[in-house]
Amino acid sequence: MTTITETNKAKARALLAQLTLDEKVDIIHAAGLFKSGGAVRLGIPEFHMDDGPMGPREELHNDNWAPLWNTRDRVTYLPSGSAVASTWNRALAHTVGEVLGEEARGRGKDVILGPSLNIKRSPLCGRNFEYMSEDPYLAGEQGAAYIRGVQESDVAACAKHYAANSQETDRLDVDETISERALREIYLPAFEDAVKRGGVLSIMGAYNLVNGEQCCESKKLLDDILRDEWGFDGFVVSDWSAVKRTAASARVGLDVEMSVTPNFDEYYFANPLRRAIAAGEVSEADVDTKVLRVLAVMDALHMLPADDGTKPARKAGSYATIAHAAKALTVARESIVLLKNDAGVSGRPVLPLNEGSLRRVLVVGANADRIHSNGGGSAVIKALHEVTPLLGLNGQLGGNVTIEYVLGYDAKQVVQDDSWQEDSLENSVGSAADDAERAAALRDGAVARAREYAASGDPVVFVGGLDHEHDLEGRDRETIELPYGQDALISALLDVAPDTVLVFVAGSPVAMPWADRAHAIVWNWYNGCESGTALAEVLLGRVNPSGHLPETFPIALADSPAHSVGTFGPGLHVRYDEDIYVGYRYFETRDVPVRFCFGHGLSYTTFAYSDLDVRRVDDAIRIAFTVTNTGERAGKAVPQVYFGLEGTGEDRPVKELRGFTKVALGAGESRQVEITLDAARALRYWSNGAGAYTVAPAAVVYVGESVRDIRLTGHIG
Amino acid sequence: MTTITETNKAKARALLAQLTLDEKVDIIHAAGLFKSGGAVRLGIPEFHMDDGPMGPREELHNDNWAPLWNTRDRVTYLPSGSAVASTWNRALAHTVGEVLGEEARGRGKDVILGPSLNIKRSPLCGRNFEYMSEDPYLAGEQGAAYIRGVQESDVAACAKHYAANSQETDRLDVDETISERALREIYLPAFEDAVKRGGVLSIMGAYNLVNGEQCCESKKLLDDILRDEWGFDGFVVSDWSAVKRTAASARVGLDVEMSVTPNFDEYYFANPLRRAIAAGEVSEADVDTKVLRVLAVMDALHMLPADDGTKPARKAGSYATIAHAAKALTVARESIVLLKNDAGVSGRPVLPLNEGSLRRVLVVGANADRIHSNGGGSAVIKALHEVTPLLGLNGQLGGNVTIEYVLGYDAKQVVQDDSWQEDSLENSVGSAADDAERAAALRDGAVARAREYAASGDPVVFVGGLDHEHDLEGRDRETIELPYGQDALISALLDVAPDTVLVFVAGSPVAMPWADRAHAIVWNWYNGCESGTALAEVLLGRVNPSGHLPETFPIALADSPAHSVGTFGPGLHVRYDEDIYVGYRYFETRDVPVRFCFGHGLSYTTFAYSDLDVRRVDDAIRIAFTVTNTGERAGKAVPQVYFGLEGTGEDRPVKELRGFTKVALGAGESRQVEITLDAARALRYWSNGAGAYTVAPAAVVYVGESVRDIRLTGHIG
Repeated sequence: MTTITETNKAKARALLAQLTLDEKVDIIHAAGLFKSGGAVRLGIPEFHMDDGPMGPREELHNDNWAPLWNTRDRVTYLPSGSAVASTWNRALAHTVGEVLGEEARGRGKDVILGPSLNIKRSPLCGRNFEYMSEDPYLAGEQGAAYIRGVQESDVAACAKHYAANSQETDRLDVDETISERALREIYLPAFEDAVKRGGVLSIMGAYNLVNGEQCCESKKLLDDILRDEWGFDGFVVSDWSAVKRTAASARVGLDVEMSVTPNFDEYYFANPLRRAIAAGEVSEADVDTKVLRVLAVMDALHMLPADDGTKPARKAGSYATIAHAAKALTVARESIVLLKNDAGVSGRPVLPLNEGSLRRVLVVGANADRIHSNGGGSAVIKALHEVTPLLGLNGQLGGNVTIEYVLGYDAKQVVQDDSWQEDSLENSVGSAADDAERAAALRDGAVARAREYAASGDPVVFVGGLDHEHDLEGRDRETIELPYGQDALISALLDVAPDTVLVFVAGSPVAMPWADRAHAIVWNWYNGCESGTALAEVLLGRVNPSGHLPETFPIALADSPAHSVGTFGPGLHVRYDEDIYVGYRYFETRDVPVRFCFGHGLSYTTFAYSDLDVRRVDDAIRIAFTVTNTGERAGKAVPQVYFGLEGTGEDRPVKELRGFTKVALGAGESRQVEITLDAARALRYWSNGAGAYTVAPAAVVYVGESVRDIRLTGHIG
Repeated sequence: MTTITETNKAKARALLAQLTLDEKVDIIHAAGLFKSGGAVRLGIPEFHMDDGPMGPREELHNDNWAPLWNTRDRVTYLPSGSAVASTWNRALAHTVGEVLGEEARGRGKDVILGPSLNIKRSPLCGRNFEYMSEDPYLAGEQGAAYIRGVQESDVAACAKHYAANSQETDRLDVDETISERALREIYLPAFEDAVKRGGVLSIMGAYNLVNGEQCCESKKLLDDILRDEWGFDGFVVSDWSAVKRTAASARVGLDVEMSVTPNFDEYYFANPLRRAIAAGEVSEADVDTKVLRVLAVMDALHMLPADDGTKPARKAGSYATIAHAAKALTVARESIVLLKNDAGVSGRPVLPLNEGSLRRVLVVGANADRIHSNGGGSAVIKALHEVTPLLGLNGQLGGNVTIEYVLGYDAKQVVQDDSWQEDSLENSVGSAADDAERAAALRDGAVARAREYAASGDPVVFVGGLDHEHDLEGRDRETIELPYGQDALISALLDVAPDTVLVFVAGSPVAMPWADRAHAIVWNWYNGCESGTALAEVLLGRVNPSGHLPETFPIALADSPAHSVGTFGPGLHVRYDEDIYVGYRYFETRDVPVRFCFGHGLSYTTFAYSDLDVRRVDDAIRIAFTVTNTGERAGKAVPQVYFGLEGTGEDRPVKELRGFTKVALGAGESRQVEITLDAARALRYWSNGAGAYTVAPAAVVYVGESVRDIRLTGHIG
C-alpha cells in the first residue's frame, strides 16, 4: 500500500519554505483542464490528472472539453465499477486498478480520477454503472483493492465523489438531508476504507450539498471526519467547478480547485484567493496546508527532485497492450451474473448452450452489435478495441455454427406522445407513426425468426439492456423500464421461444415484468474491451459464471427505499428518509419482495455449505465453514457473511454484509473456508442514542450465497 | 500436413456418380462473389472462399465488391507476406498460417486466398508487400510452412498467383516471355514447394499470359507441370475473372471459375459450359475431373457428410482473439530488419535507444500515425485493432518520456507538374504552390525541432516509407523514390540531427540517396495489428532485431535486372530477358553494387562462425558449423547457406540460397548448427542443354549472414 511518509512530508515542508505565495497559489488551482500548476524554478512539475475509472480518457484541449483527436491516446477499456464489484473478488479489483494505474502512468498522468465509490441509493442514478454497490462494505473492499492496484504505478487514485453524490439530477445544487447514522454507516464507510485500507492519495469533493453544506466547503466532511477521524493526509481536489466560493473552500480542507473556465487566473483559488489573502479573509497558513498536502503526494509519487536536483526513479507504465486486454478479460469473465437458469423445454437448464450440438443461433437485439466504450460522460473511453457480444459469439464459436442476427428493436426512443411538440404536430405524428410501424416490423421479424429457431430446437439469444444514453453522467433515468420497446419484444420472444436466453448489457437494474416466464437471464454490465469474448465464453460454458449482484434488482421502482421512503431527483432538495435502510437493508428488513436480491448469482454447478464454526480469537471473529462443489464442473463460489446485530437497543437492519470471499472448487471438491473479521469493525454501528460509533455486544452470523440464500446460521456473543 | 487421401477421392467418386450435369456445373463456378455452388440434395455445401493472406477479408455483397458494413467481421491483422519471409523463421511462418486458418475457419470460410507466392521480380510491383521474396527457396520454405499452418484448421490455403504474376501493370492481358529455365528455377519452385512440402489444397490461376498462353488455359502449367510432375491433386481456382474462354479453360486443369459478374448463370463455367458440352466442345469427363478435385478437397476439409448422412467433426476456428494478436506480435518482433546501425555522435551505435536516460523523443513522419490494415486491394483487413508506431512507442515507453510528434510531410502527392490539367491551370497552379508552401513549412518545422533535440542529445525518430496508395494491388509504382518529398526531409533531418533513426513502414524497396549519411535505418514492413508495439520494442532494445531482407534493395531502379536487362510494365508484352538472374542472382553474378543485399539484417549483438564441415550422408548434404554470440546480449542469428554450382558447363549464378535456419543464442553462447539438405534438390538446376532438371556434380558451399557477408566457405563434390 502506497502511503505518505514522514520523509515525503519533510520534503514538502522544505520546498514550501522556498515557494512564493504566487507559486503556492499556482500549485492549488487548475492550469489547464486536467492539470494544476507547478513551480518549475524548484523542479515542482505540473500535476496531470485524467478521467476516469475505466481507463485514462483521451487527450482534450487545455481549456475546453473538445478532443484533440490524437491517435496515440487509445487505451485498454476496463470493466466498469459495477462489473468490478460484481466479481466479489478483491484480487480482480486489484487487477483492474493495476492496469488502470499502468495505463494512466503510461499516458503520463499523475492522478487518475477513480474509483467512483458512491452508494447506489436508487436504481435510477445515471452514474450507477461507475459505482460499485449499494453496500458500503462491498464498495469499500473492492474500492480499496482497486486503489492499491492503481497506486503501485506511482499514480494517485482519486476516490470520488465525496460525499453522497448518489444522484445526477441537479447535482450541482441539490441539498441532501441525510441522518448522521446514514452518513456514518452507508455513505462514508467506502471512503473510509479508501483511506484506511486503500491508502488513497486523493479524494474528490462532490458538487452537491449535504445537510445544507457544500461538500467542498464542509469542515465536517473535509477536516473533522476525513483528516481527524480517518487520518487522511493526501489532498482533496474539487469536482470540476465544484468550488463556488473562495474563502469558504479555502478555509477548509479542499486543497486543489479544478474547473473548466478558460481564464485560469480567475479561478476561486487563483487571483480571488490572492485577494482574499490580502484582505485577511484567508490565511497564508491555510494555503500552506494545501500546498504541503499536494507536495507530499507528489513526493510519494516520486515526482519531486532529490535535494541534489536529480530526478527520482519513477514507474513508467504502459498502455494499450495485449497484456492489459488479457487482464480485462479475466475480470469480465468473473463479473457476469447468471441471474436465472431454469430448466428449458428439454428438461435441462437452458445454459450453457450445448456447443457440441449447436448448428445455428439466432441473436436478437441492438446491444449485441453496439459498443459502449464511447459514452457515459467522464467515464468515456477511446478504446483500442472493443469486442461486441456479436463479435465475441462469432469469434469464439467459430465457423461450424451459423449465427443469424436480427436487430429486433431500434436503439432510439419510440415517440409515444408528442403533444408537447404542438408546433410540429403534423410532422411528428407522421414520424411517430413511422417509428411505431418500423418498431412493429422489427419486432415481428425477430419473433418470426425466433419461432422458427425454437421449432427446430435451435437457441435464441436476446442481447438488450441499456446504453450510455441512459447510464450517463449528468442525467438520471426517469424509469427503470427497459427503453426502445424491449419489454414487448422480450415478451413476444418468450411466447414463441420460451428458452430464449436474455442477456442484458447495462449498468443499472431494469424492470423485468416477464422475468417469471424467462428461463435464462444473464447480466453482463459494461464489461470492457473483451466484453463480448467473456459473454460468449459464459454462454458456451467455457467459463462458469461467478458474478454476484452488488445491488438489489427491485420488482418496481416504487419498491426502492429512495422512492418509497425518501425522495429522489428534482427539486434541489432530497431527503434520505430511508436512513440506513438502503438497498437490501431495506428490502430484507421490511420484507419487500425483489426481482433478484443482493449477492445473488448462479453457477453452472452447485455448492453446499456445512460445519459452521464462529468464534472469537483475540480481537477477531473467526468464521469457518466448509464449501463443497456438489456439481459436475469446476466453479467459483462466493460465500457471503452477514451479521444481524443484537443488543443495540436501536432499530437495525436484519442483515448487513460483513465478509465475503471467492473460492474456486473442482467438481466434487470440498474446502474449509475461514473468514476472519476485525471484531470492532464487524460489530460496529452508529448509535443514534450515543451519537457515536458503538460496538454491538452480539450478532447472528449468516453464511450464504446471497442475502436471501442463507445456508448456515451461527452466533457471536 | 493435410493431404488428399484415397478415401477422400473415393468419397468424391461416389458423390459424383449421383450428381446431375447441372449440379456438376454448379459446383465449378461462382454462386456469389466468394462462393461456388453446392448440391444441397446430396449434402454438398457451398464452398466459401475469402481474401486474403493477412487475415480474412470483411463480408461483401454477394454480387459486388461493396462491404456489408458488419461489425462482426473484424479480425486479427497479420504481418504481410514480406514480413513473414523476413523472419527467416519457418515456425513463425507456420504461426501466421495457423492464425490465418483459425480465423478463416472461425469466419466460416473453407478456402483462404493465400499465401501469395509470386517472385519479386522488380521493386515496383504493387503487390510486392504480399509476396515473400525474390528467391524461390525462401518463398517456398516460408510458403510451405504457412500453408501447413493454415490447413491445420480444416481450411484450404490457396497458393497464388500461378504463375509469374510479378507485375500489376496490365495484369489482365500482359504476355510474359520467360525462358524455360527461368520458369523452372525462379517462377515455379515456390509453387512446387507449396504442393510438395506444403500440401496445398488449392492454387489460383493468374490473370496474365506466359509465353503467349493464358495461365488459366495452360495445359503445360495446369496439367503437365502442376499435376503430372508435382502430383498436385487439389483444385485450381481462377483469379477473379481470369477465365476468358469456356472451352480453352474447361479442357485443361482449371477447375473452378470465380468472377464478379452479377449474372452467375452467364459465367464461362455456367450456361456457356453447358452449351459447350452440348455442342461437344467440352466433354463431361473434363467436368467430372474438376468436380472430383473439388469434392476431394471438400472431403479432406471434413465438409462432406458420411455415408449415413452425419456431418463429420470439423475444426471450428476462432477469430479476433487476444491469443491471435499475441501471435501476430511474436511474428512482427522477428520480421523487423535493422538495416544499418553505425556509431552515432556518442561513439556508440545509435540503436537501441538508451531507455534509462531517455527524457524525450521527437517523432517525425506521417507513417508514425497511420494505419495500414485498411488498404492494399484484396489484402485489405478490417482489423479489430492496429497499433501505430506512435501508439506503440507511447504505449511501451510510458509516462516518463515525452514524445513530441510532428508530421514533417503530408502523405499526399505534391503536384510537381500540372500541365496535364490545362483546363484548370489557374486553380491547379495555385494549389500546387499552396502544396509546396505547406510541404516546406512542414519540413522546416520538423527540421527545427530535430535541430533542437539533437543539440540536447535527445533522439529523433523518423517514421516514413510507403502506404497502400503505393503498395497496392492493380497498380505498380512508377519509381522507387520515396513519395511525398520524404527524401528532402530526411536529408535535412540528417543535416541537423545525424543520429536520426530512420524507420520505414513499406512493402517494397525504396531508393535511399541519403543512406551513406544515415547512422540507423530500420525496415518495418506492414507488420500487422501489433506493428507499433514490435517496432517500439526493437527501438528500445527490449527485442533484439533478427529480420533479414528477403530481397535486394538496389541503389537505383535501373540497377535492377528487370529494368536493366528485361522489360517491365506497360505494353502488354514484357520480356524476362534477365532469365534466372533475378534479384541477388543478378547483383552477385554481375557484381552490381546494391544498397542492402539479400539476406542482410543486423542485430544488437554480433555472431561469429567457425568449424565448417560439409559432407554427404547418403542422399543428403550435411552442413555443420558453429555459431557464437560474441556480443553482450541475447540475439538470434540467421545462418544462410548458398551454393555456387560447379561443373554444369552452363552459365550459373555465383550463389543460390539452398538452406537457412534461425538460432537463438544467449550472450557468449556457442552452438553447433546442422543444416541437412536433400542433395538432389540442393544441386538441382534446369539445364538448357538437356532441357531438363539436372544435378550438378559439385558446388562451392557458402555460409554467411547475408549473400554478401559470407563467413565460411566449403565445398561439396
